[in-house]
Amino acid sequence: MYRIGIDLGGTNVAFGLVDETGRLLKKESVPTMRDASAEELTEAIAENTLAFIKKCGIGEDSVESVGIGCPGACNDEKGILLLTVNLPFRNTDIRGIFSRYTKIPVHIGNDANCAALGEALFGGGKGTKTSLTITLGTGVGGGIVIDGKLYTGFNGMAGEMGHMVIRKSGVRCGCGRRGCFETYASATAVIRETREALAKHPDSLISRLCDGDPSKIDAKTAFDAMRLGDKTGERIVKAYIKDLGEGIINYINIFQPEIILLGGGVSKEGEGLLKPLRRYVYRFSYGAAMFKKTRTRIEKAQLGNDAGIIGAAML
Amino acid sequence: MYRIGIDLGGTNVAFGLVDETGRLLKKESVPTMRDASAEELTEAIAENTLAFIKKCGIGEDSVESVGIGCPGACNDEKGILLLTVNLPFRNTDIRGIFSRYTKIPVHIGNDANCAALGEALFGGGKGTKTSLTITLGTGVGGGIVIDGKLYTGFNGMAGEMGHMVIRKSGVRCGCGRRGCFETYASATAVIRETREALAKHPDSLISRLCDGDPSKIDAKTAFDAMRLGDKTGERIVKAYIKDLGEGIINYINIFQPEIILLGGGVSKEGEGLLKPLRRYVYRFSYGAAMFKKTRTRIEKAQLGNDAGIIGAAML
Repeated sequence: MYRIGIDLGGTNVAFGLVDETGRLLKKESVPTMRDASAEELTEAIAENTLAFIKKCGIGEDSVESVGIGCPGACNDEKGILLLTVNLPFRNTDIRGIFSRYTKIPVHIGNDANCAALGEALFGGGKGTKTSLTITLGTGVGGGIVIDGKLYTGFNGMAGEMGHMVIRKSGVRCGCGRRGCFETYASATAVIRETREALAKHPDSLISRLCDGDPSKIDAKTAFDAMRLGDKTGERIVKAYIKDLGEGIINYINIFQPEIILLGGGVSKEGEGLLKPLRRYVYRFSYGAAMFKKTRTRIEKAQLGNDAGIIGAAML
Repeated sequence: MYRIGIDLGGTNVAFGLVDETGRLLKKESVPTMRDASAEELTEAIAENTLAFIKKCGIGEDSVESVGIGCPGACNDEKGILLLTVNLPFRNTDIRGIFSRYTKIPVHIGNDANCAALGEALFGGGKGTKTSLTITLGTGVGGGIVIDGKLYTGFNGMAGEMGHMVIRKSGVRCGCGRRGCFETYASATAVIRETREALAKHPDSLISRLCDGDPSKIDAKTAFDAMRLGDKTGERIVKAYIKDLGEGIINYINIFQPEIILLGGGVSKEGEGLLKPLRRYVYRFSYGAAMFKKTRTRIEKAQLGNDAGIIGAAML
């Protein structure tokens, strides 16, 4: 049997054919109809799903389920997409609309949660039962997988990994609070800190790396400067790792997961980020110094952008 | 069938006979043998358990299980008490030692986790599937119940609810970090803040309430002063509720549990604490303003000291 995973984004809707071992066998992407209503959009997705299945050369009866990763709040029990920010969905009965087109069971989930499920089952978390995935991108997202299943809370909205305050009265967050993990651990945060450092230290290597143009600074700039021996870059990275570490230690003390997987732009730094991060985390997380054999592993996520489709298929 | 719940404390070991509906039918307490080895202590607990069962007038075959709430890190899968702080246990094979005395299955769990399980199943959380219990006492403890079962992480040590940093570089915590939730939301924290306020405002009502003696200040003093119209008392309580709220919002954004139950000394303030707390929490937690019907309830824990025994019985 196969499964279909769909990653519903503001720009594109991506369809994927996934087998039982989590392999993405075929992928296709169509532009998201920007001016359509929620119902029209859902109908188009249903039609495209059936067309995609046909293109895959399989019958509907070979498809166990369709899973849709949505950029918003979902209730999979009822099959309802409660709310999206950049798309017109609001209490949209996705399952009901799909049922007019096909008998294949339909599941929905938050897109960041789906990526976490994909990573947990077939990416860096393969073989583990309990994992957290934390994505360090424009924001900080992710998801919680317990006993191989996505944990979404009683209303479907759990796992807002970025919206945990670690510095009361800190940097203002889009969620209305101040000092959220996201405002210190996202790629956006590293960029902000790098730009501020450039303004204060115009003579640092950062200036040369971005041709003196703050808009050319990205999440990699400070790490690059550090690798070239720049003190300012080193300071930014060290402070970033402490903030990131603070949030990760919080999550370990709460969940004691088998593994924490880091995804998103900043995670591309790989071991250069992970090594000092582990050092900090194992020094301060509860019991980690005493129980070395049973401490949470911290690794890089493996599936990249495919995690969302693969995870959606597994909903 | 009955179950036996045991609350292993540094001063006393309490035994309880619990029925399937969570009623505590009989309770007995014996002093903890302070100078005994871990093995001797476990043997004594096993012997006392059998004596207690006899006193209850039932046979061993009427006891479904024995559960022991321990003040430390446990591995229930293996039946091993990994470590306690105030008692001599270290990798002690509790299940193995008990098996020399009885065939009744034995479970172990962290004592704060057990209290959370008791509250979830038969106290304030009765009827819910997913709940967090947070105890505002000398420290901040608690536990996580998902689908009616205790969540303890892959190594048995999850649910350290107090050791989530909410104020980086804040007050030093016993766990080695700074700014943990515990250092702002515990009864100890309210007392610290009240004492500091007394030193700064010796003319406030707090002075009269404690006869000018800081050592007479308890977690209630600031609340009492506030109720009598004292501005200093009001300021302390308001600041406390914001800190408590910050941590609770974090937990809602992560877990979206059906209910959060507050126990421990400070929770005795009841609605005087809960009403302003809910106002703050629902204003800032993710989605709570938009999805009023599916937001986490925040209530007082119900079982008091019995929660630990009842929860241990249900392990």
